[in-house]
Amino acid sequence: MQQIIEIVPNYSEGKNADIMQKIIAPFQNNPLISLVDLEMDASYHRSVVTIIGEAQTVLRQMVESAKIAASLIDMRRHSGEHPRMGAIDVCPLIPIQNITEQECIDLSRKLAQNINEASQIPIYLYAKSASNEQRSLLPNIRQGEFEGLATKMTNPEWAPDFGEAKPHPSAGALAIGCRKPLVAFNIDMNSNDKGKVLKIARRIRYSSGGYRFIQAGAARLQERRLCQVTMNLTDYEQTPLYQALEATMMEARRYQMDVVASEIVGLVPKACLVNSLKYYLHLEDDAVLDLSLPDIVELSMKYFKLRDFNEQKIIEYYVKNK
Amino acid sequence: MQQIIEIVPNYSEGKNADIMQKIIAPFQNNPLISLVDLEMDASYHRSVVTIIGEAQTVLRQMVESAKIAASLIDMRRHSGEHPRMGAIDVCPLIPIQNITEQECIDLSRKLAQNINEASQIPIYLYAKSASNEQRSLLPNIRQGEFEGLATKMTNPEWAPDFGEAKPHPSAGALAIGCRKPLVAFNIDMNSNDKGKVLKIARRIRYSSGGYRFIQAGAARLQERRLCQVTMNLTDYEQTPLYQALEATMMEARRYQMDVVASEIVGLVPKACLVNSLKYYLHLEDDAVLDLSLPDIVELSMKYFKLRDFNEQKIIEYYVKNK
Repeated sequence: MQQIIEIVPNYSEGKNADIMQKIIAPFQNNPLISLVDLEMDASYHRSVVTIIGEAQTVLRQMVESAKIAASLIDMRRHSGEHPRMGAIDVCPLIPIQNITEQECIDLSRKLAQNINEASQIPIYLYAKSASNEQRSLLPNIRQGEFEGLATKMTNPEWAPDFGEAKPHPSAGALAIGCRKPLVAFNIDMNSNDKGKVLKIARRIRYSSGGYRFIQAGAARLQERRLCQVTMNLTDYEQTPLYQALEATMMEARRYQMDVVASEIVGLVPKACLVNSLKYYLHLEDDAVLDLSLPDIVELSMKYFKLRDFNEQKIIEYYVKNK
Repeated sequence: MQQIIEIVPNYSEGKNADIMQKIIAPFQNNPLISLVDLEMDASYHRSVVTIIGEAQTVLRQMVESAKIAASLIDMRRHSGEHPRMGAIDVCPLIPIQNITEQECIDLSRKLAQNINEASQIPIYLYAKSASNEQRSLLPNIRQGEFEGLATKMTNPEWAPDFGEAKPHPSAGALAIGCRKPLVAFNIDMNSNDKGKVLKIARRIRYSSGGYRFIQAGAARLQERRLCQVTMNLTDYEQTPLYQALEATMMEARRYQMDVVASEIVGLVPKACLVNSLKYYLHLEDDAVLDLSLPDIVELSMKYFKLRDFNEQKIIEYYVKNK
């Protein structure tokens, strides 16, 4: 039985499609892996790529992709709405089938070592691969961003797990780690006031008293002339998606603001959607709700106000077809 | 300048007023302290007493009160809706004026030692006085309740901080500690289904993915024929009261249940109420909102659906008048 993992590398290039095509080329035309998603975001100046496939092949091709990204992206000339510290900013590994969490942690160390050897990028292990509690949270590692990295790395506390204690001149640093499926969920507000939207984000996120498994911030989407609450749900079983949405609506009422739409960035496990649909369908958590993927898409767009959503954003679409 | 503290001892007697009168007698007719609240709850079979006053006097009188409670309450014959492990179940100390947190922690150790010497009750230090992380949370200490205490205490991990490692035969054990002002907030649901109300409580509380500073459970109020979400807000600045109320309403919608009223048990700091009123008045957190105590009472009853509420439940009512 093949070991299947998902990786979701985030690259600091969200505008130039030619560059991104070169960066993702190693993931294409390979029967053992699927390039399932490329989300380019011009406001963030960042792309999120999702690959699912046979573990060793995925690792080998990721080393190649990182080499290309390090040569084509120059962080010294990068600016965007999303915090970042490197050309390949972060690369999570998620166990999908026939692989334990510990095996996935071991793979993450191997990937870190191989990328560092191939491209001389210093690497931090984060999430379940982290070498200490402080590094388990990506925002701690990324604090100070690319611009603050050279100074930060002179502090022995922030020596990287692989590589020398100085940033790659153009590519910065990279965080790699094994984690649970993470749901990147953004909520569009009918407001262009980023300060107020950030206040909403603060009220719902754990770090300032909100829900235990929500990380959240605010971002302005220039092309849509509105601001988003942008969040990661780091354990959708314990802090479900419906809570993130309803809590945002609750906080927005203070400012007489409304939610106009929402979006999933990357992939989402089917169980995340189904469990939160139960809330809106007045079903108990442990009720059986057997829905086809098209039904899940339709109901999710209705109840979660998802835009730009389809079956191909549900992780089981790929696992099932392999 | 006098050092002023608040203590909120919880006694496992909520039905017999004569017994409670004897237990609280040491707090009466003393010019240096105010007995500001006695809440007897028959369903819980528990009373919450609130005393504010000069620190050394409060401590001395608390030792007397504990001695009386230990002689009059027999846990071997006690049952009630609220978890408990002792005749005097818990006694928090809260710094109010002219006293630092560290000084208040020192006082809590002195109180623990004095009660143990006077009444031979084993004592656990909790909250900011806790000797380790596990003991900082009262539910960890109280888990197993009075009935499980004798067995639990044979585990060296659960040796008490003061006294022998066995329960007082009739009075069990007691937790003492310094903490921030804690708001005991209960929400009446229009349902007698304790199982569903507990599911609501689980969704809002930190331990299962909810808000960071909410501890919550469910209780049935026999005399009102309804169930409550019963909670402690352990840091109302970071997880405000309005979030506890609105999140409960949000979860209740799954079950098509409604909030009918709410109550504050014990005292509440004025700032807790004013900060959450700002939410309903569409004001920013940092807006100035200067309200008299009668205004705060009126608005709190309107927006938080508080029942049985008045100025004497606001802590500043006593500090101001001293």
